[in-house]
Formats: sequence, C-alpha cells, structure tokens
Amino acid sequence: MPVGGFVPLNLKAVAGIRIGTASAGISQTQRDDLTVFELAKKTQVASVFTTNKFCAAPVTLAKKHITESSPRYLLINSGNANAGLGDVGLLSATQCCEVLADKVNVDVNQILPFSTGVIGEHLPVDVLVGGLPSAIDNLAEDNWLSAAKAIMTTDTCEKGCAKVIQLNGVDVTITGIAKGSGMIRPDMATMLSYIATDMPIAGDVLQVMLKAAVDVSFNSITVDGDTSTNDAVILMATGLVNTASIDSIEDSRYADFLAALTDVCCFLAESIVRDGEGATKLVTVKVEQAASVKDAKEVGYTIAHSPLVKTALFASDPNWGRILAAVGRAKIEELNVDEISIYLNDVCIVESGQRSPEYTEEQGQSVMNQEDILIRVVLAQGLYSASVLTCDLSYDYVKINAEYRS
Amino acid sequence: MPVGGFVPLNLKAVAGIRIGTASAGISQTQRDDLTVFELAKKTQVASVFTTNKFCAAPVTLAKKHITESSPRYLLINSGNANAGLGDVGLLSATQCCEVLADKVNVDVNQILPFSTGVIGEHLPVDVLVGGLPSAIDNLAEDNWLSAAKAIMTTDTCEKGCAKVIQLNGVDVTITGIAKGSGMIRPDMATMLSYIATDMPIAGDVLQVMLKAAVDVSFNSITVDGDTSTNDAVILMATGLVNTASIDSIEDSRYADFLAALTDVCCFLAESIVRDGEGATKLVTVKVEQAASVKDAKEVGYTIAHSPLVKTALFASDPNWGRILAAVGRAKIEELNVDEISIYLNDVCIVESGQRSPEYTEEQGQSVMNQEDILIRVVLAQGLYSASVLTCDLSYDYVKINAEYRS
Repeated sequence: MPVGGFVPLNLKAVAGIRIGTASAGISQTQRDDLTVFELAKKTQVASVFTTNKFCAAPVTLAKKHITESSPRYLLINSGNANAGLGDVGLLSATQCCEVLADKVNVDVNQILPFSTGVIGEHLPVDVLVGGLPSAIDNLAEDNWLSAAKAIMTTDTCEKGCAKVIQLNGVDVTITGIAKGSGMIRPDMATMLSYIATDMPIAGDVLQVMLKAAVDVSFNSITVDGDTSTNDAVILMATGLVNTASIDSIEDSRYADFLAALTDVCCFLAESIVRDGEGATKLVTVKVEQAASVKDAKEVGYTIAHSPLVKTALFASDPNWGRILAAVGRAKIEELNVDEISIYLNDVCIVESGQRSPEYTEEQGQSVMNQEDILIRVVLAQGLYSASVLTCDLSYDYVKINAEYRS
Repeated sequence: MPVGGFVPLNLKAVAGIRIGTASAGISQTQRDDLTVFELAKKTQVASVFTTNKFCAAPVTLAKKHITESSPRYLLINSGNANAGLGDVGLLSATQCCEVLADKVNVDVNQILPFSTGVIGEHLPVDVLVGGLPSAIDNLAEDNWLSAAKAIMTTDTCEKGCAKVIQLNGVDVTITGIAKGSGMIRPDMATMLSYIATDMPIAGDVLQVMLKAAVDVSFNSITVDGDTSTNDAVILMATGLVNTASIDSIEDSRYADFLAALTDVCCFLAESIVRDGEGATKLVTVKVEQAASVKDAKEVGYTIAHSPLVKTALFASDPNWGRILAAVGRAKIEELNVDEISIYLNDVCIVESGQRSPEYTEEQGQSVMNQEDILIRVVLAQGLYSASVLTCDLSYDYVKINAEYRS
C-alpha cells in the first residue's frame, strides 16, 4: 500500500489520444501487460530517457525513431525490460514495432517501443504481438486508467494525474500516468511516464518544457539510488484545442502551461515515492542556503540514500546523529559544520552544527511518528536550495527485492 | 554471527604495549566498555582519521594532541561516540584525558582519546573516569583480546590479527584489533583499529606505511556506504626489538614489513565486512581493466552500494541484470558497454555487454548459493583495477538499524 493509502484517480481523456490495453501474457500475472497509445496526426512529442549507459533495446530504438519520423503510436509492455540482450534485444523490439506498424498502416519508425520488467530475459516477441489485435480493438479515449494499471510491475497502485487549466479563456487538459516503485533514482529522465495535452505547442518548446518540469519532479526523487536501464518520460501535445499554438518561450501562456505541467509531473513523481518498495513514510529532504543547486542536491541525495537514515525513519527513531553524519560525508567542496542547522518539520534538532539546546527527544519523536516528514538542512553557505523526495527502508523493501526478480 | 562463523583469535603481545580494560557502565551492557593502551617511551605513532566533516570531539582532540606531543596512552570508550555536541563534547573529551594524565603522570596531550557508539548524546564523563582506576590496575601485555571485545558496539564478534615475520633474521610482531559492523564506508580512514609492532620504525616512514596499507584494506570496504564521524586507525611502533630502525622507504626491509602490515589490515577489514550488520555473504567486487584506479573504485562502490544488488545477494538470486544496471549508472567518464564482461566467480554472465550465450541460470545459482562471492567486472578500458569488499542487505540489517540507536 502506498504511503497515505490508495486514492482513486480521475483521469480525463485528452482529445487526439486513444489507448488500448490487453493481457498478452508477458508478465506472470493475469492482468493487462500490453498498452498501445495512438496519437492524432501532427501530435508533437517531447521525450527524456535514462542516462544509464546500459540502456535497454527499446530505449535505443525509441530514441532512433523519434529523430527519424513523427510518432503515431507508443507500444508499451510490462513484465520484461528487454535490457542487457544486445543485438537480439534490438531485433525483438524492432520486430514488435514492425508487426504493429503493419496492422495500423504507419511506418515502423512512427512507433516508439517501451519495456519494463525483468532485465536480461529474452522478450517473448510472439506472445507480445499475439496481444496486439485485442489492444488495437479496444483503442478508446477513456482508457487512461487501464493504461496506468497495465504499465505497472512491483507497483501496488496505479499512478496518474489530470489537470484542466484555462489559457486565455480556453480550457486545456493535461493528463499523465506513471509507473515505478523500485530501481528509482531517475537521472535526467525517470521511470516510465506518459503525459498528454490537447494544447497546440511547437515541438522544440514542448521539449524545453518537459526538461524543466522533469528536473524538479522525476529527477528529484529516489527510492534506492538505482537508476533504471529503461526510464523514459514522453510528453505528447495533440494540438486539438482550437487556439493559437505556443511557439516560443516568450508566449505569455508558456509559464502558466509549464506550471501546470510541473504540477502534474510532481504529483506523479510523489506517487512513485509514496509507492516506493516497502515504503511506510514519505520523506522530503530540503537543503537550503547551499553554494549551488548541485551542492544542495548532493547533500539531499546523500541523506536520502543513507541506509542508516532510512532505517531510522522506518523505526520512527529521531536519530538525528545519522542525518548529521550523512551531511558530513556529502561530497561537496565547502562545508562549515559550525553553521549548519537541521530541522525535522518545525523542530530544530541541530543548531550551529551541534545538538540544539532546546531540543528534546519527545519533540523529535512526535515528528517521526508522522507519515510525511520534512528533513530541512540549512547550510548557511549560499543562496541555492533543492528538494529530494524519498521513502524509508523497511523489512518489506528487502522482502520485495529478495523475492521478486526485477 | 559473522559470515564464515566465529574464528578464535590468537593475539600475540607486542613488547612495549600494555592494555587495560574495565566495565565503566557507559554502554547499556555489562561488558567492558573502557580500554587504556599504554605505549613505551619513544613509541612512534602513525594515524589516519575519518574524512567526515562532522568529525567527533575525540577525533578533533586526538588529531591536535598527536601534533603537539608524543603519545603515551590511548583512551577508548564504546557506548557513546561523543559526536555532534560541539564545545561541550570537546570539553568532555578533554576532561577525560586530564583525569587519566593526572593518574599516570604524563602531559594531557600525550593521551589520544577515541569514542564509538551513539551519536549526539552527552558523554558521561564521571562514569567514564570512574572506570579508569580499574583499567589502569589491570594493564598487561596480554590483554589484546579483552581490548578487542571492549571496543565493540553492534559487532557480534571481536576482530583481531597477529603476525610474526622475520626481517633480516630478526622476529618482528605485528598485532592489531578493530571494531566495526555498521556505518562502514571508510574514506581515507576507517572504523577504530589499533595496530602495534615492536619493530623500530621512524615516525614518517610509519605514516607512509599506514596510509599505503589502509588504502587497499580499510579504504576498500563498505557495508552501507555511511562514513562514520569517529573512524580512526592507529599504528604504534614501540621499537623494542633489538635491531636497526627502518628510517627510509629505501630500506630493504620496508617492503616486507609493509606487506605484512597490509595483510594484517586486510584481515581486519575483511573481519569487519564479515561481521557487517545482518551480513550473510562476503562479496568481493573486483573491477579490472579500468581507465584509472578511481574509475575502478567508482564502479566497484556503485555495485557494492546498490540495494538491489545487495538484496539479490541476500536472496542468492543470480539477478545479473541488477549488476549490469549498476555498472551502467556509475559516474565514470568513458564506458563502452559493448566491451564489458561480468563474471560471478568463474562463471561468465555478461560478455561484450550482453548476456553470455553459454550462461545458464543453474551456473549463476550455484555461485550465488555460496557464502563467499566474487563479482568481477572487466571494463576493457585500460590497465587499472581495484577491489571493494562488501556484504549483502538482509532483514537483519533493517532490524539492527531500526532497533539499535547508533
């Protein structure tokens, strides 16, 4: 169960996007594991992909196709990552795209493939393409929730977000879904996420917006520090709202749209952490007054990745010495330990680099007992800040990853 | 229980070193928690300390004293780290040194203080000094085993090593002890370790030797990636063997002594990992043919710190995709994934960047079922290699760190 419990999703359709899902039998479970997105002609597509150098075959192929042509279909399977398989993996991904291209009558490079699941096992091409007719048959605009379910692996709940905003009096929809629970430390990319809008936006502007939104959302979360081989975020703009296109970042609607898109991305990213493998707490590590954003993120990630901090959070133990030790080992140039303050929510635990004289164990305990915790570190070094979202490390994290082959 | 089980220690006395222990009552248990080392006059002392910027008060004081005077006593307590307490912590450490200096009639800066245990709680000075008379009373040359026990915290077994070598026909003894189980990712230093020899060695040569030995031993291990605030290694040379002193690295005995010292340090470092919190496997990650030692260590540590790799090791699951994903996200400049090979012991799992065609799950399983596992990564980038020693991540790691306040 995600931290905060299950919340029903209300995912609004986006004009120009149809989705079909099917149970092809790639994953071991009975549920849907195959998803096809159909994009209206002239849809603009922006993307960010994993920086893991061992990127999966579908990532390599999707990056190639997106430069060659205008995407018309996304083909997504769960249950198998098609990663670590070299040329055989690339051939499998190509074959799947070819079969779909043939069925829907587009060029093969108008299909973007995505896979998520076990690394290093051969993608069962026949099984996958066997599910395609059924997925194509049920293509419909209102299948976002089905898709959010079909892309899951160890996720315990589907993740999605929809938002309607007004731009110059015109209603614009942004709807997105995401999957991810473990192997989460996105780096200039994220786990799988698909976001669409009916707003007309030029391709280059769309890419700038996606990058900006991803940096403060998917690129600021971590469950276990492991960057996946298959991460990708796709942003589609169908342009079917009858209004002028956003063709430049000077457009007055740029900032409003970006703000809404960022909200959607942050909500999806937070949903991934809330559903982090074994998570019982949602923890925001906010580092303020750093000499650079890079320093702030480095300190934030050092705390967020510390198994000792994470197990203390699981135990609801206000063991601030572990936070302090993590700050002290962060790889940043300058750190004046005598000026650092650390807060748990509003409780000051460290002041001028040492235990705050007013701090009591009871105060720390009352914060730690909560499900949503803010660790705020004030470095007193400069003007920059950054937040990293993470979760605790529990018995269930070990159980899930010792028992599940991902 | 450590990986490989308990092994009885046979710790040879070193002429010129007397040790006394006592149960002062600093830790919650009944066992000894106070240790005093007495060093013969003219003993040369080398040291390396933690690089954690939040270093503990005793570390600050020991580093100061060692530059001011010739150490005659080490004063070590377990059960309290005296860290994160600012000036109050420094005062506590100074007071303890003053009381001991007074009792044994040396200058206060001839005492080096060390603490290990919970961070952020005030050191109970009265309790600690209350144990001093008893520790001084039982000073004796054959108390190495008692000291190995008295410096433990979450350790499940005492750690020590003794070696007698012949240098130009003269018997020379090297005996060392160490403690450490969690918060282990030494960085130019280590957990607490005290090593002594009766060989006469000049102070500057001793320091060069210690640094060289520590780099390939204590500085190449990790349990959880957390660098402690209190790490220290002390090497003492009493010079009581009747032979010429090693005064230069040109001395023909330098290499032989360094090799033996390195053996002792590696044995102690391995003992720490074998007793890593919750460890069920001892894992060596060896990275070969890297462009630099730095790259080799970066790839080694990325694998060794991956919670997904560590939980797969705990489950004895030959989930090589997780190892490959960790290599792919390591922060090194150049990585040609098409040339990488990965082996589990002698089994080739990845060849030319993809699953080896000969690899079978049974082969991987048979390696994973063992207690001692070698993960060997061949980068095919250059001439350098490095090894990192680590352990798996088990339910007991979470249990120990969720229940124990360290």
